[in-house]
Amino acid sequence: MEVLVPFSPDRPKSRLSGVLDGAERVAFARAMCADVLAAVRAAGGDPVLLTTASAAELDVDAMAERAGIPAPSVVDDDRELSAAVNAQLAERRPTPEEPTAVVMADLAIATSASIERLLAADGDVIIAPGRGGGTNALVVRDPAFRVDYHGASVRDHRRIAAEIGADVREIDSYRLASDVDEPADLTEVLLHGEGAAAAWLRESGFGLAVTDGRVGLSREGP
Amino acid sequence: MEVLVPFSPDRPKSRLSGVLDGAERVAFARAMCADVLAAVRAAGGDPVLLTTASAAELDVDAMAERAGIPAPSVVDDDRELSAAVNAQLAERRPTPEEPTAVVMADLAIATSASIERLLAADGDVIIAPGRGGGTNALVVRDPAFRVDYHGASVRDHRRIAAEIGADVREIDSYRLASDVDEPADLTEVLLHGEGAAAAWLRESGFGLAVTDGRVGLSREGP
Repeated sequence: MEVLVPFSPDRPKSRLSGVLDGAERVAFARAMCADVLAAVRAAGGDPVLLTTASAAELDVDAMAERAGIPAPSVVDDDRELSAAVNAQLAERRPTPEEPTAVVMADLAIATSASIERLLAADGDVIIAPGRGGGTNALVVRDPAFRVDYHGASVRDHRRIAAEIGADVREIDSYRLASDVDEPADLTEVLLHGEGAAAAWLRESGFGLAVTDGRVGLSREGP
Repeated sequence: MEVLVPFSPDRPKSRLSGVLDGAERVAFARAMCADVLAAVRAAGGDPVLLTTASAAELDVDAMAERAGIPAPSVVDDDRELSAAVNAQLAERRPTPEEPTAVVMADLAIATSASIERLLAADGDVIIAPGRGGGTNALVVRDPAFRVDYHGASVRDHRRIAAEIGADVREIDSYRLASDVDEPADLTEVLLHGEGAAAAWLRESGFGLAVTDGRVGLSREGP
């Protein structure tokens, strides 16, 4: 199954600016994306980077080498996320025989097992909800389905699927629900991550700090 | 399988004090607990309330009626969580034939399906991690296992299981990972809850507010 992985390399992860500087956010976002590409590949999916940059600008070969996988194909589209994904859905016309999946590039604790569950789930539209009402991953088997990532997209995607009469299911996965946007999310990567993103954080001096029974983030200087 | 549901009814959920007053926090905590009891029962488990109060003080019958289930048995123990759970594990001596589970009372979006996955999982010790390093649910099939809920308990439970040579597995469930402690967690209940806790929030005027693409909480006066 082709799995679109939207990745926007310009000024990524601005909500991490309190703990990571600009160059660090770029490096960390690339490490997360490499982990997602590797998990998709290990789950038997065929990753397609959907990105606002070109393959050369992205240095996709380096990212694939880091992930230990063949270089993924790259589609470049500088429109915002929903427009870019919908253009791909319109072009691919997913069906039960040839579904299309969409998996966000910041699911740093996704594993091949969690992606396998997603790809194997029955239904016309499979939604993996993200914390805060987002949609972190989708499988689409109905050519009429379109995305709208703005706002509480999990509700909108349930509604859009219902409007076209598609059978919609949800995947109950913490690993797929955990996108990384805020400093608190980094503790989840340290607790549960197994790939390049967790390694990058540890190499950059991050660790867990447990104070008064609550788990926080610590950072040591280089 | 007997499923311990620890529930401390005094001054519950203090981190919700910015959005709910004391009486509201008590009512909401009871609604969440009723939902968990109902989900455990629907999953084929036998819930046992492990509580710092007596059955009469708790008015367990009213809680069970709300959950639409027979009144659960009640064990009262006024020690802190880990000591109270460990006393039960010492007494019950869980084995593969007679395991004991522990499911927190504030898993307001847990469903019978997510609890079923937990109870059906293979392994000597099954951990459902919570956000922030907690342990939201456990199945124990080894009489030597003990809990330590302080701090990043998911790491401690992995270590404790390894020390006694127990085969430890983790359940990847967003519904089990989502305990309710902070105002942001209430949006998850509104988005994904199907029971008494979600109904209580709606009846109390809470709704979702989507501003600038971010999902927050709103409340209307009565």
